[in-house]
Amino acid sequence: MQQEKKYIPFEQIKITDRQWPDKTITKAPVWCSVDLRDGNQALVTPMGIPEKIRFFHTLVDCGFKEIEVGFPSASETEYEILRTLIEGGHIPDDVTVQVLVQAREELIRKTFEAVRGAKNVIIHFYNSTSTLQRKIVFGKDMDGITDIAVQGARLIRQLTEEEVARSGMNIRYEYSPESFSGTEIDFSVAICEAVMQEMGSTKENPIILNLPSTVEMCTPNTYADQIEYFCRHIKNREAAIVSVHPHNDRGTGVACAELALLAGADRIEGTLFGNGERTGNLDIVTVALNMFTQNVDPELDFSHILDIKKVYEECTKMHVPERQPYAGELAFTAFSGSHQDAIRKGYEYMKNSGTEYWEVPYLPINPADIHREYEPVIRINSQSGKGGAAFVLQHTVGYNLPKEMHPEFGNIVKAAADEYGDELSSEQIVQLFRKEYIDFAGKYQLLRHRFTELNEADGSIHSRFEGEISVAGEKKSVVGVGNGPIDAFFQALNGVGINGYEFVNYHEHAISKGSDAKGICYIELKQKNNGHIFGVGIHSNINVAALRGIICAINRAEK
Amino acid sequence: MQQEKKYIPFEQIKITDRQWPDKTITKAPVWCSVDLRDGNQALVTPMGIPEKIRFFHTLVDCGFKEIEVGFPSASETEYEILRTLIEGGHIPDDVTVQVLVQAREELIRKTFEAVRGAKNVIIHFYNSTSTLQRKIVFGKDMDGITDIAVQGARLIRQLTEEEVARSGMNIRYEYSPESFSGTEIDFSVAICEAVMQEMGSTKENPIILNLPSTVEMCTPNTYADQIEYFCRHIKNREAAIVSVHPHNDRGTGVACAELALLAGADRIEGTLFGNGERTGNLDIVTVALNMFTQNVDPELDFSHILDIKKVYEECTKMHVPERQPYAGELAFTAFSGSHQDAIRKGYEYMKNSGTEYWEVPYLPINPADIHREYEPVIRINSQSGKGGAAFVLQHTVGYNLPKEMHPEFGNIVKAAADEYGDELSSEQIVQLFRKEYIDFAGKYQLLRHRFTELNEADGSIHSRFEGEISVAGEKKSVVGVGNGPIDAFFQALNGVGINGYEFVNYHEHAISKGSDAKGICYIELKQKNNGHIFGVGIHSNINVAALRGIICAINRAEK
Repeated sequence: MQQEKKYIPFEQIKITDRQWPDKTITKAPVWCSVDLRDGNQALVTPMGIPEKIRFFHTLVDCGFKEIEVGFPSASETEYEILRTLIEGGHIPDDVTVQVLVQAREELIRKTFEAVRGAKNVIIHFYNSTSTLQRKIVFGKDMDGITDIAVQGARLIRQLTEEEVARSGMNIRYEYSPESFSGTEIDFSVAICEAVMQEMGSTKENPIILNLPSTVEMCTPNTYADQIEYFCRHIKNREAAIVSVHPHNDRGTGVACAELALLAGADRIEGTLFGNGERTGNLDIVTVALNMFTQNVDPELDFSHILDIKKVYEECTKMHVPERQPYAGELAFTAFSGSHQDAIRKGYEYMKNSGTEYWEVPYLPINPADIHREYEPVIRINSQSGKGGAAFVLQHTVGYNLPKEMHPEFGNIVKAAADEYGDELSSEQIVQLFRKEYIDFAGKYQLLRHRFTELNEADGSIHSRFEGEISVAGEKKSVVGVGNGPIDAFFQALNGVGINGYEFVNYHEHAISKGSDAKGICYIELKQKNNGHIFGVGIHSNINVAALRGIICAINRAEK
Repeated sequence: MQQEKKYIPFEQIKITDRQWPDKTITKAPVWCSVDLRDGNQALVTPMGIPEKIRFFHTLVDCGFKEIEVGFPSASETEYEILRTLIEGGHIPDDVTVQVLVQAREELIRKTFEAVRGAKNVIIHFYNSTSTLQRKIVFGKDMDGITDIAVQGARLIRQLTEEEVARSGMNIRYEYSPESFSGTEIDFSVAICEAVMQEMGSTKENPIILNLPSTVEMCTPNTYADQIEYFCRHIKNREAAIVSVHPHNDRGTGVACAELALLAGADRIEGTLFGNGERTGNLDIVTVALNMFTQNVDPELDFSHILDIKKVYEECTKMHVPERQPYAGELAFTAFSGSHQDAIRKGYEYMKNSGTEYWEVPYLPINPADIHREYEPVIRINSQSGKGGAAFVLQHTVGYNLPKEMHPEFGNIVKAAADEYGDELSSEQIVQLFRKEYIDFAGKYQLLRHRFTELNEADGSIHSRFEGEISVAGEKKSVVGVGNGPIDAFFQALNGVGINGYEFVNYHEHAISKGSDAKGICYIELKQKNNGHIFGVGIHSNINVAALRGIICAINRAEK
């Protein structure tokens, strides 16, 4: 590939005695949703007031305690949402609304107007600090950039103290050295220290220092190094809540957030499903549910993920991609046959063993924990294995095919999928099963019959079958005796020359509830000059189901 | 959130003297596309032969030298694609086709039939090795699992030696301990060593050892630890090409691939745009272009990314998400006003400075390097800044508004977007500009005029304007003298009492080519009792353009 202009590679910071790769995430960070600000500003169709209110309540329901709701000095619509939230009484007492503002006087003043009357507010101010932005956008040196931040801090502190004196509002501060990921790390530390000093931050009244990867610059480990370095070098560390705000230009936003937590970050800003400028903000849903799968309580509730997705899609008019972790339509779909088999075995193992753990291969989360299901999204195509089709039958119509029968039906499904050239839906698989086994009409038909069964005092049982069958349209009377109805019927068939089969096995189970429940019977026969073959019968009488199964198997063998 | 069953947290491996976090990616790995296998098997509508052939050629054009084309023993359609590729002469001499097979005898034999006649082949065999799969799926201990792998290896080596003796085919081996990420690391090393020994792998004839994160288990650093540990502990390291095959269950597939490269991996398996089971395979496009932005040649050509995306979407019937890095529709869209301003300044800086580097904020890659553009996707909504609208005008109709004019037009755009409640398209912005400046009809109109200009011997210039203007429908004759046409006209207006304005500045430039080119003139006036106001005139005569600009500004002031 040709470059029109050379790229400047990211320069990795020097860090000695790096700690983060040995750490594990053990507790939830403070979460801050920026859906209504960073997310909303990047929409092709920004949300109106009703959508914003609906989205806000959804965020509250998920458990967000800090929500950035806008940039009220930027436009009338941004201002208005804040007034509506405050005046409409939409903000619970334990939720803090956060507002963004550049470190510029007129914007700061307008911001304070916008938040009046809210109980808990974070004033989030920023200016851009990176090497590139200093040179190209601001034409200022480090001192000039620091001055912008400190001037902004001073005014915000002054207006806060006035407001607190007047109304008793709870106002906290957040400062972002925007484009942190492209800023010399020692300068980031220095400018944040200058702001902290101006703000008079203390352990009791800490400032949020938010360190964005406004643009992802390099592999995610380098961001973690920046965060660890920052946390270890900033003076008065306990007077700061270190926050991260990853974007996703290199497709590693989630990784940046996770490694940043290992590196010492206390707080994460992001959006639901990663909405945001360009390639998006960090997807909070994924990070939170990743924690959940490691038994760490994320302190956010995404258990009704599809409901949340619905609100998101309706409000933003964006679409959560099919392969998005946890929320995507295909996230719990297994196409591969061996995957399907393993998943089925996992579910079986869990049921049979009574294990207290989630132990199903290929599913990193139990779909039920987020009110999703594995079964309805299973898809069968020409590359799926035999187990998948059996799983569909089990989970759609409740037929538990014996394991020995899986290859036979699996091959039928595979051939149909090959012919069809597409995946088969669950419905098509059920239809295929009916056509092949239940509705199969062949040479033989059972017309009427009578069983008599004698249970001797010594415990032996004699069954006698008398009946009439149709053989290619011709009626024949049959009689047989055995130790049970299946045996007796089998002998009866032998008596009229249907003797190419050995009985191998049968399985039978109910497929509906109550005393008049229907049963399904799977019959396995061995053909004398061929392999095994299966038949299926369904009837509310278990004997009849079995006889039908035998007839079915023979009909299939002689088709 | 409630858990139905507890999760078993991932147990981080013990690694001392960890090296990878200090490394940087300095060269491209060997790439292997698994689009036609792992990708295709996860499609709702699997590709037919024509789509597979088209996709294969696209992969070849991108520069892939190793392409996994199927699992030929799994189904007829899988077998057929291989025969079509081989018999149709589709495979270039420098491209190796790879086929997947489980370590099972009948499947291995069928696989060797399928590849007959190909020049270069990788036989990729696997069995599942994880703790969970051993327990639940196979019911075997480590020795039993190792035995499956070694038996498979033995047969593959034997069939290979027979085939090479017969046809001289170039056959290489790949072994995957599938579900590596969930396998005890020392067992992964041991089983791979057993396979290597069986295969007789040497530095000259190395085996590919492919270590999948079949399911992402934990944060991506733990996968890197596994890879580094593996690379450092495997005996006869130089006889192995260590390959990784990340999936994306935790949204960190790209991070896993990148950190694995730091940790010593030589080769990456993945798909275009991350197609694959559940949440997808690793997206090779993102990893390759991430390298590209660090000046590392990815040795793959994604420079025509939208063409590749088109083939992908047509063949797979999947959709590349809007926010996908590099390829997504919105990847180069800036909505935020401050972002737009900074990007515009970046482009200006690059033009003016002649820098040899790519130095544009918020755009980690030069869109032109992948035949994309920043400008056509810029979108203006109520939160966009003043610079964005100017950028649109510059890049769509070639109007270079003077910087002083940006706030005025920016506010007009912002108000329109607020009212409209939606983003404005580029076209709407141009229309807004025309309506406000070019087509604006007000109180004053220039009916006819004559200029005379005298250039004195001493260098002084006298311009005289005589003309007729319409003032609210009433004709007035005007005369003015000055040092140039603008000055003369301005004086003429003064003479009939239009004197509330001071002339501040003008900018004029051509907006088409040739001697009859049209020019556009931007006029800035200061209103005596108010702020500055701008007017615009367009005409092929530069004087007329300027006069129209003045009239426009005054008309706008007095509307």
